[in-house]
Amino acid sequence: MASEHTAKAFDSDLQELTRLVAEMGGLVERMITESVDALIRRDVALGKRVVAADIEIDNLQRVIEERAVLTIARRQPMAIDLREIVSAMRVATDLERIGDLAKNMGKRVAALESDFQPLKLIRGLEHMTDLVLSQVKSVLDAYAAHDLPAAMNVWKGDEEVDAICTSLFRELLTYMMEDPRNISFCIHLMFCAKNIERIGDHATNIAETVFYMIEGQQITDKRPKGDMTNFATTVPGT
Amino acid sequence: MASEHTAKAFDSDLQELTRLVAEMGGLVERMITESVDALIRRDVALGKRVVAADIEIDNLQRVIEERAVLTIARRQPMAIDLREIVSAMRVATDLERIGDLAKNMGKRVAALESDFQPLKLIRGLEHMTDLVLSQVKSVLDAYAAHDLPAAMNVWKGDEEVDAICTSLFRELLTYMMEDPRNISFCIHLMFCAKNIERIGDHATNIAETVFYMIEGQQITDKRPKGDMTNFATTVPGT
Repeated sequence: MASEHTAKAFDSDLQELTRLVAEMGGLVERMITESVDALIRRDVALGKRVVAADIEIDNLQRVIEERAVLTIARRQPMAIDLREIVSAMRVATDLERIGDLAKNMGKRVAALESDFQPLKLIRGLEHMTDLVLSQVKSVLDAYAAHDLPAAMNVWKGDEEVDAICTSLFRELLTYMMEDPRNISFCIHLMFCAKNIERIGDHATNIAETVFYMIEGQQITDKRPKGDMTNFATTVPGT
Repeated sequence: MASEHTAKAFDSDLQELTRLVAEMGGLVERMITESVDALIRRDVALGKRVVAADIEIDNLQRVIEERAVLTIARRQPMAIDLREIVSAMRVATDLERIGDLAKNMGKRVAALESDFQPLKLIRGLEHMTDLVLSQVKSVLDAYAAHDLPAAMNVWKGDEEVDAICTSLFRELLTYMMEDPRNISFCIHLMFCAKNIERIGDHATNIAETVFYMIEGQQITDKRPKGDMTNFATTVPGT
């Protein structure tokens, strides 16, 4: 980026990209909240609104990708400038996946026919959602503020989410064993719990993108991993 | 791309990108086959190899992204040339997700403790995997050959996969209702069936990328959708 003109044009492109990512982030946060609210309150209409909202997320991702690519071609940014643009694309990809996962939960609301809804389960799901939502918010703030320590806090912090998910799976399994009439409902909740856990994984991915953006290299440390849900459906004696 | 030198340099960059995508595609196809083989044969060692192979997929995606971005910055391609580069990045993103889904199946092998394994279920899983694998192969061939009709065949063709997945879910649900000792095993297979279905969705995404690459616009038609697995866990009277 030789001239002052190009540098200014780049700054304005980057600002617009950052604005679009923030807009997408806000929409995705709302989708997470509303999809879990819809599940807990059995609000089919709200579930449908979440499903409909996903189109906007997909469009925003395409717009961000398009603008990022045009900026790279036109301004030929280097080093940190180039990483800023690539990072916007990466964050948009993770946000799009989070949107898909929330949409999938929205779809399931209509299928929950049973009245079975133990309070302990609901509390667990709410707690897990609160944790994941605060991770998504924190990491998007860290991305916007170029705050590496804040991003690393999110990166290290999803063990608790994984632990809650594992314990929810165990509980759901117990309800299914107790009464076959609970099975259908519990399977839906298992898929939902897994979706929320995956949303947490995407928050972690975004934290890795912040590391790459600021440090100029991929993170190499292995992340602590507490997820045992692939194993939690195996109960001794079954 | 003014000079002949730039055009040649671009062609060589593009060739290398296409080669990397083909390499990634080949690895991902193997991961799909091996993860399902490992599940069916309860081959824990093979499952672990699939899990280990995912690191290579993640690395390849990063390499493709990096090279694509450098090519855009250095060669400033326009129109179809630019779309070729963006498409390589998009296909790599879908292949990376397919790798994750196969890895997740690989992880589950170790958790399958029960001896319960009805033949009809295995046949259904194998049939679904064969279909999805042939979709992945076809769409990667279509991408490499710039064959739009072949890509559109894949795009239209995942109704059958969705139908098999729905019927597998119904069957798994029946086994769970019949005997609580089947529940844990059946839940794993449900997550695996859903993973295979999602791999099919990624094949469809790649078909959309081929459309974008060749036609220069996003596909707008709504894809036929036969997936009812979000509802198949609701059995009348439960």
